[in-house]
Amino acid sequence: MSIVAVGSVAFDTITTPSGHVDDVLGGAVTYFALAASHFTDVRVVAVVGEDFTSEHEQVLKDHGVDTRGIQRAPGKTFRWGGQYIDNLNEAKTEFTELNVFENFQPQIPEAYLDSRFLFLANIHPTLQAAVRLELDHVQFTGGDTMNYWITRTPKELAETLKLVNILLINDNEVHMLTHEKSLLRGSRKVMAMGPQALVIKHGEYGSTIFFREGAFGIGTHPFRAPALPLEEVKDPTGAGDSFAGGFMGYIASQEQLNREVLKRALFYGGVMGSFAVESFGTERLQSLTREEVEARFQLFRELTHLG
Amino acid sequence: MSIVAVGSVAFDTITTPSGHVDDVLGGAVTYFALAASHFTDVRVVAVVGEDFTSEHEQVLKDHGVDTRGIQRAPGKTFRWGGQYIDNLNEAKTEFTELNVFENFQPQIPEAYLDSRFLFLANIHPTLQAAVRLELDHVQFTGGDTMNYWITRTPKELAETLKLVNILLINDNEVHMLTHEKSLLRGSRKVMAMGPQALVIKHGEYGSTIFFREGAFGIGTHPFRAPALPLEEVKDPTGAGDSFAGGFMGYIASQEQLNREVLKRALFYGGVMGSFAVESFGTERLQSLTREEVEARFQLFRELTHLG
Repeated sequence: MSIVAVGSVAFDTITTPSGHVDDVLGGAVTYFALAASHFTDVRVVAVVGEDFTSEHEQVLKDHGVDTRGIQRAPGKTFRWGGQYIDNLNEAKTEFTELNVFENFQPQIPEAYLDSRFLFLANIHPTLQAAVRLELDHVQFTGGDTMNYWITRTPKELAETLKLVNILLINDNEVHMLTHEKSLLRGSRKVMAMGPQALVIKHGEYGSTIFFREGAFGIGTHPFRAPALPLEEVKDPTGAGDSFAGGFMGYIASQEQLNREVLKRALFYGGVMGSFAVESFGTERLQSLTREEVEARFQLFRELTHLG
Repeated sequence: MSIVAVGSVAFDTITTPSGHVDDVLGGAVTYFALAASHFTDVRVVAVVGEDFTSEHEQVLKDHGVDTRGIQRAPGKTFRWGGQYIDNLNEAKTEFTELNVFENFQPQIPEAYLDSRFLFLANIHPTLQAAVRLELDHVQFTGGDTMNYWITRTPKELAETLKLVNILLINDNEVHMLTHEKSLLRGSRKVMAMGPQALVIKHGEYGSTIFFREGAFGIGTHPFRAPALPLEEVKDPTGAGDSFAGGFMGYIASQEQLNREVLKRALFYGGVMGSFAVESFGTERLQSLTREEVEARFQLFRELTHLG
């Protein structure tokens, strides 16, 4: 089934211990769409400036991504610069130029209105809610957010969380959102706000999914997926969005939605995150084959399953 | 088979967000022995002062631990005070009184000399090496160390690592020992120093075992075990030593030593670590039954295994 993703398209300038790149195609929706495209059809909603060329668009089209929801606005595309010299787990932002993204008002093409799956990447929670409400055939929504919205727009975020089936955030965001040190207790607080499940992304340590009692099956046991110990993390940018793309893309490709599917989705999230960091920008996500995805899924299984 | 453990016995004064305790029985060897005692016979080598009573010794004896290797010296037992108020993952030391531990010279009782398994807890690497060389029936040695020895006695530590089959340390110790940010690359450097395998303890994110090519089986794939998302970590003290106790105790209880055994041992390490932090001091390790251990092992399996 098709999945709609709404969020940012950007040009990133990135420095890591492995090198430096200027103005490479990035943004949450770009990483998400490329990762999810290995599993299902993806439709994107975003805004770009006059510097976004047909070559840039072709990167998405080559992966079957429906780009009719990419609005063009006068001015420049969102630009972000950051470095990971001291810490590969956390970007240090060097500059942010919102440009056309500052006044982003998501417009949903009519052709998207029958979509059943939705991913709300990290944008203002009020915009996230508006998109969800407009797409009234959606049956399953995944959402992301960040410290900025947790701190600045807590009320708006609380409204959005009521509309989200699964929230995907990192450890620190759980601590900020719930004021709980224990991820188990924090997860319960998050799920009390709306989501039936919570995915916590632990970076190089993998991820955990927590289920609300009775949601998607029986019991309250969480489930943990690994990340792959890597020779070299070339560029961590987009790892979380690629994770979300693998996770949501796999879910949208399945006929059933139950705990076993969500557990496998967590593995595929880790798989796509592990590919994303192997190159600068979206390069590795572009060159990837479905066979490579499946081979790495098996590697993840071997990494965690007893004989 | 019996396992010998050499290291510290201590009285700990601990403050965590859950409370405070004074002078509770602790030390690496105490946690290790109690954890390992659920799997196999344990023999300890340590030094205590005049304040170590027969009641303290009885805690170990009640778990079948052979205490003939506990030397008594004039003065007080090693005392440590620390708190985890800001960070449950890292103790902030408030005081260290080495007392009788300062001049610890391990003396191995003759009755221990037939031992096949050995755990070298965190003491001066030269003492670790001496114990290993004296116990010449030992076929398998696990070892621990810490930043203090990595920085102060690198040459002595390098000699000891040649005698250790498996080193068990945490992420930060791997980074310090190898100057590598990638745990995969770091693990290769550690294994080039001697050990055939390396266990990296990630705290609340579980642990990973890396194998040298050809050691204990075929291939170079690492294996990852989870930690249990907990309601509350009452006291993290001794979690790493309890992990080592579960890991080494399980290995010593098996007839074979291969990768599958080591993978299960990693799970049992996580299991014992998860119990240790549920109470202050060694309380939970004392009250534990083998049935509870097996039930938690199953929980760890459900936490990580796809259907």
